[in-house]
Amino acid sequence: MKEERPLILITNDDGIYAKGLRELIDVMCLFGKVLVVAPERAMSGMSAAVTLENPIRVSEVEKNDNYESYKCTGTPADCVKAGFNLFGERPDYVVIGINHGPNSGTNIVYSGTMGATMEGCLHGVVSIGFSLCDFDADADFSKSKVWVARIFQKVVEKGLPERVCLNVNIPSGEIKGVEICRQTKGHWEEEFEKHKDPYNHDYYWLGGTFINEEPDVSGTDLCVLENQKITIVPVKVDYTSLETVDEMRKWEF
Amino acid sequence: MKEERPLILITNDDGIYAKGLRELIDVMCLFGKVLVVAPERAMSGMSAAVTLENPIRVSEVEKNDNYESYKCTGTPADCVKAGFNLFGERPDYVVIGINHGPNSGTNIVYSGTMGATMEGCLHGVVSIGFSLCDFDADADFSKSKVWVARIFQKVVEKGLPERVCLNVNIPSGEIKGVEICRQTKGHWEEEFEKHKDPYNHDYYWLGGTFINEEPDVSGTDLCVLENQKITIVPVKVDYTSLETVDEMRKWEF
Repeated sequence: MKEERPLILITNDDGIYAKGLRELIDVMCLFGKVLVVAPERAMSGMSAAVTLENPIRVSEVEKNDNYESYKCTGTPADCVKAGFNLFGERPDYVVIGINHGPNSGTNIVYSGTMGATMEGCLHGVVSIGFSLCDFDADADFSKSKVWVARIFQKVVEKGLPERVCLNVNIPSGEIKGVEICRQTKGHWEEEFEKHKDPYNHDYYWLGGTFINEEPDVSGTDLCVLENQKITIVPVKVDYTSLETVDEMRKWEF
Repeated sequence: MKEERPLILITNDDGIYAKGLRELIDVMCLFGKVLVVAPERAMSGMSAAVTLENPIRVSEVEKNDNYESYKCTGTPADCVKAGFNLFGERPDYVVIGINHGPNSGTNIVYSGTMGATMEGCLHGVVSIGFSLCDFDADADFSKSKVWVARIFQKVVEKGLPERVCLNVNIPSGEIKGVEICRQTKGHWEEEFEKHKDPYNHDYYWLGGTFINEEPDVSGTDLCVLENQKITIVPVKVDYTSLETVDEMRKWEF
């Protein structure tokens, strides 16, 4: 039997013990019952990966009047699937984060935060991923929390189109408002930093520099973040390029 | 100094020893020099995940007059990054597969094949992911290979728009032609199959049934595949829903 308060499923990609997750739980307890299923370890860069080659384990971490939390050996997207399948009650909303670090521009492709958000969206509920532009494990989320509450409330009131979820990035420091944006075009100039292990074998760390291909273009998320505003990019979970479909139908194979 | 034949980078998500990869190498050697960097083990469901929490190792498997191949501990997207960064020459094309099993409909979100294809696209080159609708490790790729060659040749001739790559699915059995499609809407009704380990602890395997939300709708990839035609879905590596941007700009926060 469904109680009247909505069920809000929360996960993240920094893992069950991240500060940003605890801060998000705080905010979401204002709006409903909270179910947390989060990765047992940091899972950055996991995109919408799911665990097919290994089994998944889920175990209780905390249970109190306000929320229940579980850690999961799987990816952020697996955590969302577990939240919809293992607890008997269907979540009404999926909220992800608050991520330690931005998920702006093209980086959404790699983002575990946004992978989980898209997974929530595919389950047919309003799904929002929140990220703070501060990688510090002890980042200050106090200003963000007010805005997370405000944005969540507004989105619940208005609703979202089918197969659209939201990517919200919050600047660190001063917040001058919120703007709806598109994803900034950019790419990575990668570096594979070469190291040697004690047995004289090479290994690499993936790193590099993000190149913004549209610096100072208004309405792009990176530009808006630089102006200390929160960015909301509506994200479509259908990747078809319809313009290209029309164009390619003229080709002869 | 760049030789005249183009450099074609190949990877997959079934791993360096998969039959589909060897078949794709065969075809691509017709068109240029081939560099293979593929996961050392099966990496299905890895989406566009990248390895940030662990180092990456890359080691030579084979070197002959036609191609060089390397195995990599990373994800399919990592393999593409490695191909662009560790070998001194920039690939001209990225070709992925041939995957054992389809990557149709919404499943592109989870697909390691398509994660790697999108990674190639983000590097600014023509990128195509090929999948055969047959999960058998010993599947018959003979009919597919002719079409892989034909489609690759046509796409090289025509080119693709910026930030668009292709998701090609090939039916098993008879092939009645090729059709440009959009991604079919659908979702998974998941099942977490519960098992017990020898220590009496629960674990789960992720499974379920894919629900086609648009059965028999012409122009969708699943419907076209059912009619024994090859599907080509042009995929945009920018997830912004521009219609929703316009709509949400009317909201007051």
